[in-house]
Amino acid sequence: MKEDHFFYVPDAGSLTELPFEEAMHAMRVLRLKSGDEIFLMDGVGNFYRAEITLTATRRCLYKIQEPLPQEQAWKGHIHLAIAPTKVMDRIEWMAEKSTEIGFDELSFLNCKFSERKVMRTVRLEKIIISAMKQSRKPWKPTLNQIVRFSDFISTPRTGQKFICHCYQEIPRKDFYTELQHCEPEDDEDITVLIGPEGDFSIDEVKMAIKNGYQSVSLGSSRLRTETAGLYAVMLSNLVNRCQ
Amino acid sequence: MKEDHFFYVPDAGSLTELPFEEAMHAMRVLRLKSGDEIFLMDGVGNFYRAEITLTATRRCLYKIQEPLPQEQAWKGHIHLAIAPTKVMDRIEWMAEKSTEIGFDELSFLNCKFSERKVMRTVRLEKIIISAMKQSRKPWKPTLNQIVRFSDFISTPRTGQKFICHCYQEIPRKDFYTELQHCEPEDDEDITVLIGPEGDFSIDEVKMAIKNGYQSVSLGSSRLRTETAGLYAVMLSNLVNRCQ
Repeated sequence: MKEDHFFYVPDAGSLTELPFEEAMHAMRVLRLKSGDEIFLMDGVGNFYRAEITLTATRRCLYKIQEPLPQEQAWKGHIHLAIAPTKVMDRIEWMAEKSTEIGFDELSFLNCKFSERKVMRTVRLEKIIISAMKQSRKPWKPTLNQIVRFSDFISTPRTGQKFICHCYQEIPRKDFYTELQHCEPEDDEDITVLIGPEGDFSIDEVKMAIKNGYQSVSLGSSRLRTETAGLYAVMLSNLVNRCQ
Repeated sequence: MKEDHFFYVPDAGSLTELPFEEAMHAMRVLRLKSGDEIFLMDGVGNFYRAEITLTATRRCLYKIQEPLPQEQAWKGHIHLAIAPTKVMDRIEWMAEKSTEIGFDELSFLNCKFSERKVMRTVRLEKIIISAMKQSRKPWKPTLNQIVRFSDFISTPRTGQKFICHCYQEIPRKDFYTELQHCEPEDDEDITVLIGPEGDFSIDEVKMAIKNGYQSVSLGSSRLRTETAGLYAVMLSNLVNRCQ
């Protein structure tokens, strides 16, 4: 499918027209015309082979030829919640790379030592969609607005929950080892928290533990926030991958 | 050691003066003075606690107070050989992140489908040293100049050798599974090859197999070159890490 053209169309199966931005890209950049074959991804696990039936100034209609549902490459729901870095570039590449590897949800935390307390997700959403297309993954990770740390951890979550931190005075297990020790009958969902450049505060770590989060370390390496986030996604995906 | 100042000084143990660039950084940026404590990393596994003894216009002398040899966090020699991407940014972040995670050698391959046939490594060397300091790792990965693919694979290497590619017509095993199946008495060194954006050519893959490289896949995800490189380093480090 190397030379194929992919478009992200939520509810692709029940629609007959590309969303505006995708239509503009199809017609103005790729110069596609009526009769050309395209592939749609609906963000929830399906590709569709389709044919363009009509192109107008600002509209591009299609007809589905064949639905191509995909088997998920990993089990459970992988949710990364991370304190955004001061420099947005670093979070952007983490989102891109995590999408390539495969995960389900990305949340942002406003923590005590956060250097960035507000953030816009519009550009990030585009980066994620572009990475979905590039990596041919018809699953779109959910992207959430930034929330207060305390609000995030007090929200109920299914499966295993982890907080990664660097405090040697708080007992920590190894994240990957804990993931592997998960019993087969356990829920496969994973939520993992990564702190800001200055780490979580000790109080935040204690609060998370009280809320059922396991205190873990990502290993002996001292990683930047965005590297830790990607590494946590890679390990979660590795443990949950379907072979 | 959060507020400590780290300097990369090859042969730090037998010298008494910071290299020129490090000296300039110490004096002009950090405004360090005689009597200040600094930490040196020699790139081969040692930290040194030292004291600045003299600062002059372009020179900064030190005296070692205490050698602090470190235990390596991973076993064996992890060698990534990759075809550089057209956009250097992508290789740069891969080098930064791989250094944070931990590996030993980075080579660049000139392949049939390479979009970049030449590259300078001066800037990359600086990025690697900066990542070493940031991640507090006194091991400096060796950085090699770009070589022809055929020259690289015909050079003898110790340990396990892998070529990652996307050709479904050539049998491939799973990279991580193969790494795990390595017998304890086997050599722990790992060499892994990652191709350019357009992948290796089929002939290159066959040539590598003939030279003892195992044909492997990084999993079902379709990864960009630089993501594949980092992922291969992460998996190699994970399998070889000392706990």
